[in-house]
Amino acid sequence: MSTTPIRNNQSSYDAIPSDPESQGANGHRKASKRTRVVLSTALGVIAVAAITVASVYYWTAPDAPPRNVIMMVSDGFGPASETFARQYYAWDNELPYKTILPLDSIHVGQSRTQSSSSLVTDSAAGATAFSCGLKSYNGAIGVDPEETPCGTVLESAKIHQNMLTGLVVTSRVTHATPAAFSAHVAWRDWENDIALQQIGENPLGRTVDLMFGGGRCQFLTNQTVGGCRLDTRDLLTEAKTTYGWKTVLDSRQAFDALTDESELPLMGLYAPSHMSYNIDRDPAIEPSLAEMSSKALGILSKASKQQNTGFFLLIEGSRIDMAAHTNDPAAHLQEILAYQDTIQIVKDFVDANPGTVVVSTSDHETGGFTLGRQTTPDYPEYKWEPAVIKRVKRSAESLARQLIAQKSFKPDYIKDYIIKESLGITDATDSEIAYLEKWQEKNLTSSNIEEHLANMVSVRALIGWTTHGHTAVDVNLYAYGPESDKLRGTHENTDIGDFISEYLGLDLAAITSQLKSKLSFTASKSKNVGENMRYGHSM
Amino acid sequence: MSTTPIRNNQSSYDAIPSDPESQGANGHRKASKRTRVVLSTALGVIAVAAITVASVYYWTAPDAPPRNVIMMVSDGFGPASETFARQYYAWDNELPYKTILPLDSIHVGQSRTQSSSSLVTDSAAGATAFSCGLKSYNGAIGVDPEETPCGTVLESAKIHQNMLTGLVVTSRVTHATPAAFSAHVAWRDWENDIALQQIGENPLGRTVDLMFGGGRCQFLTNQTVGGCRLDTRDLLTEAKTTYGWKTVLDSRQAFDALTDESELPLMGLYAPSHMSYNIDRDPAIEPSLAEMSSKALGILSKASKQQNTGFFLLIEGSRIDMAAHTNDPAAHLQEILAYQDTIQIVKDFVDANPGTVVVSTSDHETGGFTLGRQTTPDYPEYKWEPAVIKRVKRSAESLARQLIAQKSFKPDYIKDYIIKESLGITDATDSEIAYLEKWQEKNLTSSNIEEHLANMVSVRALIGWTTHGHTAVDVNLYAYGPESDKLRGTHENTDIGDFISEYLGLDLAAITSQLKSKLSFTASKSKNVGENMRYGHSM
Repeated sequence: MSTTPIRNNQSSYDAIPSDPESQGANGHRKASKRTRVVLSTALGVIAVAAITVASVYYWTAPDAPPRNVIMMVSDGFGPASETFARQYYAWDNELPYKTILPLDSIHVGQSRTQSSSSLVTDSAAGATAFSCGLKSYNGAIGVDPEETPCGTVLESAKIHQNMLTGLVVTSRVTHATPAAFSAHVAWRDWENDIALQQIGENPLGRTVDLMFGGGRCQFLTNQTVGGCRLDTRDLLTEAKTTYGWKTVLDSRQAFDALTDESELPLMGLYAPSHMSYNIDRDPAIEPSLAEMSSKALGILSKASKQQNTGFFLLIEGSRIDMAAHTNDPAAHLQEILAYQDTIQIVKDFVDANPGTVVVSTSDHETGGFTLGRQTTPDYPEYKWEPAVIKRVKRSAESLARQLIAQKSFKPDYIKDYIIKESLGITDATDSEIAYLEKWQEKNLTSSNIEEHLANMVSVRALIGWTTHGHTAVDVNLYAYGPESDKLRGTHENTDIGDFISEYLGLDLAAITSQLKSKLSFTASKSKNVGENMRYGHSM
Repeated sequence: MSTTPIRNNQSSYDAIPSDPESQGANGHRKASKRTRVVLSTALGVIAVAAITVASVYYWTAPDAPPRNVIMMVSDGFGPASETFARQYYAWDNELPYKTILPLDSIHVGQSRTQSSSSLVTDSAAGATAFSCGLKSYNGAIGVDPEETPCGTVLESAKIHQNMLTGLVVTSRVTHATPAAFSAHVAWRDWENDIALQQIGENPLGRTVDLMFGGGRCQFLTNQTVGGCRLDTRDLLTEAKTTYGWKTVLDSRQAFDALTDESELPLMGLYAPSHMSYNIDRDPAIEPSLAEMSSKALGILSKASKQQNTGFFLLIEGSRIDMAAHTNDPAAHLQEILAYQDTIQIVKDFVDANPGTVVVSTSDHETGGFTLGRQTTPDYPEYKWEPAVIKRVKRSAESLARQLIAQKSFKPDYIKDYIIKESLGITDATDSEIAYLEKWQEKNLTSSNIEEHLANMVSVRALIGWTTHGHTAVDVNLYAYGPESDKLRGTHENTDIGDFISEYLGLDLAAITSQLKSKLSFTASKSKNVGENMRYGHSM
């Protein structure tokens, strides 16, 4: 096989022919040759003229709309996750089989995700591909394979185009994806350092104008309640006093009081660590991804128009990934549906705001998630069971935490509350129950309990998983707005960074040079991890 | 969540906006409003005129090229399978990470695969969606959910457009995918009946002009060596004497002697049942999928040009699916690479033959195949191991057959020949070996042995599988040639049938009426399965 000439190096994001007729595939429906040539020529001349005129006008005409980019990341969301959410949604609402979700309506292609260090990427290398347009190693946050900083699209948008910038996530804001756009460290767990760089302790100064998400603990010393810094600095205070942040919020009430006129820079951190899964979220305490995104769009849009620039906004459905790490299908589903709601809001924004393009993709697949599972040696039926998922009321994570928090419990607490009421399972086996009842004598960790609970659901729903880590499968690529047809077909994940850079007229090389001239700022940092990580390793 | 208005019913295959600017997404690079409107209007008027003129001309102009459709099916090939083959190929040949395969270069979207009876389809319902453009139940061969025949694109191409038609597959030609284009039975296992209809015992008469593949046994009575009909008919003889087939072949030598001028109708059946996996194939006995496709294209192209029509050709990489059913990654890989070779040949044909369009997709995913597998309770590293796959020399199927064929064997036969030499595994555990050594006393079936051998490879390659059946994940959609941009984005599998029908100007309703007027031909058949099925159930 190896001598067969099937290799085809694709060098840029528009290498996929957008029009097969122009690629030698040859049109059908032809007019007679003469008619066709005349028409083609006429159309061609007018089209070229129109593009030329339009291009010139864009950069010069006073009424050209500013360009905005909304980069959306559905972390750990593989192709099966979209099928899962769509089939569930149509089933749950008794809709026709042709029902599609907001993401489906803007499907353009796929993204290839491998990193410089592995066929299977982590989120840090995945996000660095989007932010810097280059492949780096697993764990890299805004640095190249040699661990030196690479300029990001967010930084160039801020510094070269004077655009406003924002990060809206449901993880800690210091977690891999938002970090790779706004910081540069050699290892993703150095979240204490990432927080510092995000508030403005950075060779470039402050480059982020708006941050919504979790992760408050990374900004507060561990001598404060809810803090987890290894140093004694209070970054929420420093953000205001040293780096000019106008507003630092942590409550739902303060979030609700925000208006489109709220002053930037603005930070809202709504949880000490990651925000709650949507399936568990108390809306009186934490806003949803859709709410945070809507608020961010309103504020960034208004403020950027006032200064006659565009904005760059990263929105991440961060915990789609984490639910998949736990192999928890119900939490995974609700994170995806929350992301779809956000996509709808963003699509509407794109429709209403000329010059805005949204790109949505995933950094990688998580869990080896599949919609079919053989549970006995017998050949399986071809089906999976959405009704099992519908009965689940809480994430495995929150149930495990609740269980561990009970010092003692009534004999039926596990069977009645955890399994029957919360998971909706009425046919638990004795061994499934016994495993949970004996969690203390078995020295089970929270992860062990979570994974057990999640598996009880998956096995009944006939949903499969092959790992608690990541897999290599290409992920879906979605885009909507001007020039989004350049993203059709299959692409390297780095093409997405290149697309944003080109669309906004950025100069990543110049930002990289600025960062490299002050290299010591990353080299001098100690490896601090800030808090116990969920898994103690890359996600 | 269920009240959130994210529903979006998509009603046809061109519902996905091909140009976001025309869908209200709003362009950037705008000319001043007046200039833009004037240009748009002018372009619009000319474009409409051009399309109208061209459409009329196509059907009347003597120099319009005939339209050909090449429908390619990669059976049981999910998104992870493409990633797998690409990453393997680049690794094996030490090529840059941007290396893509022929399929990648024509990626246009995804196909949604559920059937009328399940969220997880089988191949019969999947192929009927392509052939009839309608959703039917798992097991349906060219029949609707009420088990009445539906006209296929192959039949309408033959009868309404006088086109030539062909089926090139590596399974039995009577297997689900080719059957759904050329026959109508209520259950896929009635392959004896399917063979009858394929030679011409059909209300429409003979509609197939060329058939290459396996499945000779379905055409010969079981009183003949290699026959498996339940009746006493010799269909290879009847094909010639009753239904006008000019040539019926079964040898590699006869295949090689075929030229572009070889007479139609032409049948070449190169194996009693399915053809060999490519990893096991003896090229002196069986041609490859690429060779059969190339020959079919030459013959159909020449003959159809002579009669001034186009042709419809189905090409299926049938056994990509079967290797996935066994969860055999090495056999799966080599089937995929053989399919990629065929895609390259077809792409070249499209380039050289105006009016030809190729569509390639899968009926469904098989195996719950993923590129990441956790093999211990410890959190997994992010990787998979192509080197493990490279060392495998034979399919698990052929090794299991060899093992079973040995009445007795030397103690080291399993360890040395099966495991070390054929699977390339040097670290087999005692229990892995013992399982195989005791296959007789354990009453293991061939399937048990195959799955054990395949799993020995997968577990070392860190490749995951969740079932020996199918899963629901959307599959990739590839197309190249005129109008292929209509297939961009996400589509129901039925859209592919609709696309072919529209492209060729077919009338499936008329064919369906003809078939229904002679309904008894399917209803009267007994349920015969013809031979022991690989799994004894749907694939």
